[in-house]
Amino acid sequence: MRAIGIYKHASVDQADSFAEEQVDKPKAAGADVLVQVKAVSVNPVDTKQRKLKEDDGNFRILGFDAAGIIAEVGDEVEGFQPGDEVYYAGSVSRQGSNSEYQLVDHKVIAKKPANLSFSEAAALPLTALTAWEAMFEKMHIPLDAKVNEDKTILLINAAGGVGSIASQFAKLYGLNVVGTASREETITWAKQHGTEQVINHHEPLHPQLEKLGIDSVDYVFCMHQLDKAWDDIIEVVKPEGILCAITGPVEGIKLTDLTSKSLTLVWEYMFTRTLHQTPSRYIQGEILAKVAKLVEDGRIRTTKTEELEGLTVENLQKAHKRLENGSMIGKLVITV
Amino acid sequence: MRAIGIYKHASVDQADSFAEEQVDKPKAAGADVLVQVKAVSVNPVDTKQRKLKEDDGNFRILGFDAAGIIAEVGDEVEGFQPGDEVYYAGSVSRQGSNSEYQLVDHKVIAKKPANLSFSEAAALPLTALTAWEAMFEKMHIPLDAKVNEDKTILLINAAGGVGSIASQFAKLYGLNVVGTASREETITWAKQHGTEQVINHHEPLHPQLEKLGIDSVDYVFCMHQLDKAWDDIIEVVKPEGILCAITGPVEGIKLTDLTSKSLTLVWEYMFTRTLHQTPSRYIQGEILAKVAKLVEDGRIRTTKTEELEGLTVENLQKAHKRLENGSMIGKLVITV
Repeated sequence: MRAIGIYKHASVDQADSFAEEQVDKPKAAGADVLVQVKAVSVNPVDTKQRKLKEDDGNFRILGFDAAGIIAEVGDEVEGFQPGDEVYYAGSVSRQGSNSEYQLVDHKVIAKKPANLSFSEAAALPLTALTAWEAMFEKMHIPLDAKVNEDKTILLINAAGGVGSIASQFAKLYGLNVVGTASREETITWAKQHGTEQVINHHEPLHPQLEKLGIDSVDYVFCMHQLDKAWDDIIEVVKPEGILCAITGPVEGIKLTDLTSKSLTLVWEYMFTRTLHQTPSRYIQGEILAKVAKLVEDGRIRTTKTEELEGLTVENLQKAHKRLENGSMIGKLVITV
Repeated sequence: MRAIGIYKHASVDQADSFAEEQVDKPKAAGADVLVQVKAVSVNPVDTKQRKLKEDDGNFRILGFDAAGIIAEVGDEVEGFQPGDEVYYAGSVSRQGSNSEYQLVDHKVIAKKPANLSFSEAAALPLTALTAWEAMFEKMHIPLDAKVNEDKTILLINAAGGVGSIASQFAKLYGLNVVGTASREETITWAKQHGTEQVINHHEPLHPQLEKLGIDSVDYVFCMHQLDKAWDDIIEVVKPEGILCAITGPVEGIKLTDLTSKSLTLVWEYMFTRTLHQTPSRYIQGEILAKVAKLVEDGRIRTTKTEELEGLTVENLQKAHKRLENGSMIGKLVITV
């Protein structure tokens, strides 16, 4: 089968940063399903994984988000069969989705939303899992709009991949949603995806919140440059507030800032469960099934904004470049 | 009335580190009650507050933990009346309990356990509030022994003031309790107060846990020198685990250690609610009432180990010295 991967880390501008290879098509066994990949999405973690690749001669297939059709199931698989259309974010410790076929643990997949195309579905898993785990597990936000109606969440980088779905979840579950964005198109996008009020992360946050009649916030979900946002976050978060981060840098952050207000700092890394093979990893399948239902009910929308046709070296280079220059709104998808 | 306080920070070895003064007896108004103090307990926060005192000419009365009898109630006070025997930890931003009478917000007090003397009761509030808030609010440990039976908590410094009550709560609510202690008397004390298995925090923790058949723990409550314990904690905590700290130092701590396992780091500072006047501060009164009930039912014991008779300059110096040399087991109380 055809797969796109890398042999060593290299700048995307280098012609040989990605390579196309013919590799053996794997066979489903145990708890795995073999999926015929129909569309993949690209996330910042793809570029981070590319940069971590050692020059060890091994061919590493990147790509995590995917949607496709089950071709085979292993003998321990329950709840899925060949022909099922599924979506998933997979695992950072296995070969990825930039490939015609891919093996994935059936515990971390779900049937894709029936009303979405493969490419619309492929845009969702990694960011939806990240946002869901961050908000409803790590930050302990109740899944109850009534309880949340007096609570405010601040989303740092509301128009990014995770922000575009986190803001929809926050709105759906009754929180007051304030998000940051700085360009006209990101502000518009954020407002279309659940962010009720937008402020600019290039300016001090507290005066901007005060203008909106908000003195402090209960939750902060930081999805961009934690170190730069830190002082602003500490200033605006309520005593006993919860701050969740999915990305650094963390150098220079003063932990003593947590003490007076008894704050919580929690890290969300969507691949923790598959990387450490936690017993809880089946929850990722359940979350994706819930999200599929929300999409089918018209309560959550795909965050796909761009589509490249064809899984090629050129398209992967283009996609990684788009991610790396930091101007991405929503999600970029590549059809296979 | 008679009060012991300080004018400026000074070593406890200096004769004038504390001063006895006659000050006006305050009057209860609003949400406050006036308490005739019968016993006080000393905590590490007393010595920290002493060290923070500026030389501004003001007389600062230290002391937080107290038990006593209500002498007057303000016109907004509900649920208490003169003659009630109460216990509380008060507020770090008001005059303290090292005094014949003290004003305290009725929202953060409760009736003292009926089966305890004033001095036994005075040993409890600050540490019980700290342990309760840390474990059942900040760390989200369910108040349900059945749910917790497969979970393990590691208590760093299990025989200290907070450790002696945290271990009792942990055992009561069904957790497997492993605690650290290093001297014969602290090991014995810890085992008498809910810690089922004791390991030594001067040796690497993971090999000691493995010898007990424990590969990793769900919760870590660090009550001593977070920086020294950090690497051990990161090694032994489960993916998605929760780490709560009540004291630093935090310099040199690498926050990137939180990322791969998606860990939570939460700070517990018992005075957050009164310092920031959070609407949630009434919960402290509720927690103390719950703890009183547990003590009356014989399910939780006072952690008092030492008693000094008489609120004098000499006894406060002696008490602060005991706290500062770090050899304290359980709690030291001074009767008024």
